[in-house]
Amino acid sequence: MLKPLEDRVIIAVKDEEEQTVGGIVLASNAKQKPQTGKVVAVGEGTLTNDGQRIPLSVKVDDEVLYDKYAGSEVDYAGASYLVLHAKDIMAIVE
Amino acid sequence: MLKPLEDRVIIAVKDEEEQTVGGIVLASNAKQKPQTGKVVAVGEGTLTNDGQRIPLSVKVDDEVLYDKYAGSEVDYAGASYLVLHAKDIMAIVE
Amino acid sequence: MLKPLEDRVIIAVKDEEEQTVGGIVLASNAKQKPQTGKVVAVGEGTLTNDGQRIPLSVKVDDEVLYDKYAGSEVDYAGASYLVLHAKDIMAIVE
Amino acid sequence: MLKPLEDRVIIAVKDEEEQTVGGIVLASNAKQKPQTGKVVAVGEGTLTNDGQRIPLSVKVDDEVLYDKYAGSEVDYAGASYLVLHAKDIMAIVE
Amino acid sequence: MLKPLEDRVIIAVKDEEEQTVGGIVLASNAKQKPQTGKVVAVGEGTLTNDGQRIPLSVKVDDEVLYDKYAGSEVDYAGASYLVLHAKDIMAIVE
Amino acid sequence: MLKPLEDRVIIAVKDEEEQTVGGIVLASNAKQKPQTGKVVAVGEGTLTNDGQRIPLSVKVDDEVLYDKYAGSEVDYAGASYLVLHAKDIMAIVE
Amino acid sequence: MLKPLEDRVIIAVKDEEEQTVGGIVLASNAKQKPQTGKVVAVGEGTLTNDGQRIPLSVKVDDEVLYDKYAGSEVDYAGASYLVLHAKDIMAIVE
Repeated sequence: MLKPLEDRVIIAVKDEEEQTVGGIVLASNAKQKPQTGKVVAVGEGTLTNDGQRIPLSVKVDDEVLYDKYAGSEVDYAGASYLVLHAKDIMAIVE
Repeated sequence: MLKPLEDRVIIAVKDEEEQTVGGIVLASNAKQKPQTGKVVAVGEGTLTNDGQRIPLSVKVDDEVLYDKYAGSEVDYAGASYLVLHAKDIMAIVE
Repeated sequence: MLKPLEDRVIIAVKDEEEQTVGGIVLASNAKQKPQTGKVVAVGEGTLTNDGQRIPLSVKVDDEVLYDKYAGSEVDYAGASYLVLHAKDIMAIVE
Repeated sequence: MLKPLEDRVIIAVKDEEEQTVGGIVLASNAKQKPQTGKVVAVGEGTLTNDGQRIPLSVKVDDEVLYDKYAGSEVDYAGASYLVLHAKDIMAIVE
Repeated sequence: MLKPLEDRVIIAVKDEEEQTVGGIVLASNAKQKPQTGKVVAVGEGTLTNDGQRIPLSVKVDDEVLYDKYAGSEVDYAGASYLVLHAKDIMAIVE
Repeated sequence: MLKPLEDRVIIAVKDEEEQTVGGIVLASNAKQKPQTGKVVAVGEGTLTNDGQRIPLSVKVDDEVLYDKYAGSEVDYAGASYLVLHAKDIMAIVE
Repeated sequence: MLKPLEDRVIIAVKDEEEQTVGGIVLASNAKQKPQTGKVVAVGEGTLTNDGQRIPLSVKVDDEVLYDKYAGSEVDYAGASYLVLHAKDIMAIVE
């Protein structure tokens, strides 16, 4: 199991098809395109200088909206995950 | 429903026509062009190191003026929204 | 009416003619050129972590000197305004 | 009269001739070249979060050495001034 | 033995083959690709202004996931290590 | 006399010959090259928000090692000086 | 003798041969390459706003691992030294 550190969050990626023409990826438009995923693990939050942890605003099983181009992809146990900082999560889908 | 996190705000976008000549977008001028929209959801504000939330200065249903090029577009339940940081909102239209 | 947020100020723009030769804008020189305008609305100031507002140093009706290239232009109710951060105002003209 | 804001200082500019050959400005060398002027107005200093003003280290009538390329030129009442941040003043000429 | 300073961590590198065609390195894709390794030494944490050490979130023998392009490689006693800042470690593999 | 402000220091420059070939300056190598000089005046130190001055670590008559490309040259009373921030002084030559 | 200021450290450089082909320096690879040296002098640490010195984590005679491209070279009394900030030292070789 992956245990994210500090303010990091691990998200199960919902793969989205990207249209290609002759192998060239077609960006649908030039704007940042957010994407949704499910939180599978959260860090404990950043430790401040006076020993406090700042808790994160998301929890495991939240479906979240995040910036598609944030974070680092990681393959683990046959599935694809994204590790990103909590601040790159924009909203919870309720 | 989308619940924005921390200092984020979700705005219902009023689409504005962009003039095109032969498919080329014509920028009306080179200055930053603000745009208005209606706030549909606000985050709780950023959590400070000593456990305080800094409340946001806008609330749901405010009509606001924001920088057209800030934030991330998101389509949700058939409508188009913009997720941006509260600091990118310039003024409330009263 | 426009109500600026936080540390923002709205200024009624005094349009200044820019000389053109054959449609090309001629910059009078390469230095930053400040410009004067009249304050029509001011924000409440930035909210600090311990709940204080830092008040702004300008008030409505002040004639101010500001950097011509700061802020965002906005047209509202038939007039042209500039929304900028208080820190971009250089001096009050008394 | 111009009343500078916060940490700004207004300096009466001593124009310095720049050598030109056929209209081309000749920089004497590639180093930053400081220049002297006389302080004509000073701001009250920056307001800190706990309501204190940090006073400036220069006062009206000080002859000061400043970086020639700092600040913004402004013409007022037929004279030429420079508005700059106090931190761009390097020394007082005594 | 290498004793990392402050917030640094030393990791035993698991070399990963990079595919080459005619000597050209083929990046598998354009995304940041994390990599795992084993922590062999950790610093004491950063010393704050009031004399506190902020302890690190990883310890010796943790298997960790880190950004492949972070840190500095160092060869020591015939083995290859990576020295990086604790903040570049994304997760612990449990 | 020049009285440097805040964290600034004035150094009497020891001119160093730069080799030229046909008028082209030859940099001896691509590394930053420090240079020594003698401190002739020091500022009072930066004023902090709570009214304290942080004293400088150099005093008048110290021979110091500084980064050759830091600061601003100034000619005063027939001599050549360098005005730089105390943080650009690397060491005292004892 | 050179006495480094604040958070600076002086290191006796162990010159490392760089391979050249026809005078062209050959970088062994594109990664940052650390290098070892011996600490010959350390500063007192940075002075904080409330008058405390933050002590450095290295002492004279430590053999240290540092980033080869950090700091400034200085020749003094016939030997070659490197002056760098303590934060650019990665580890102590014990």
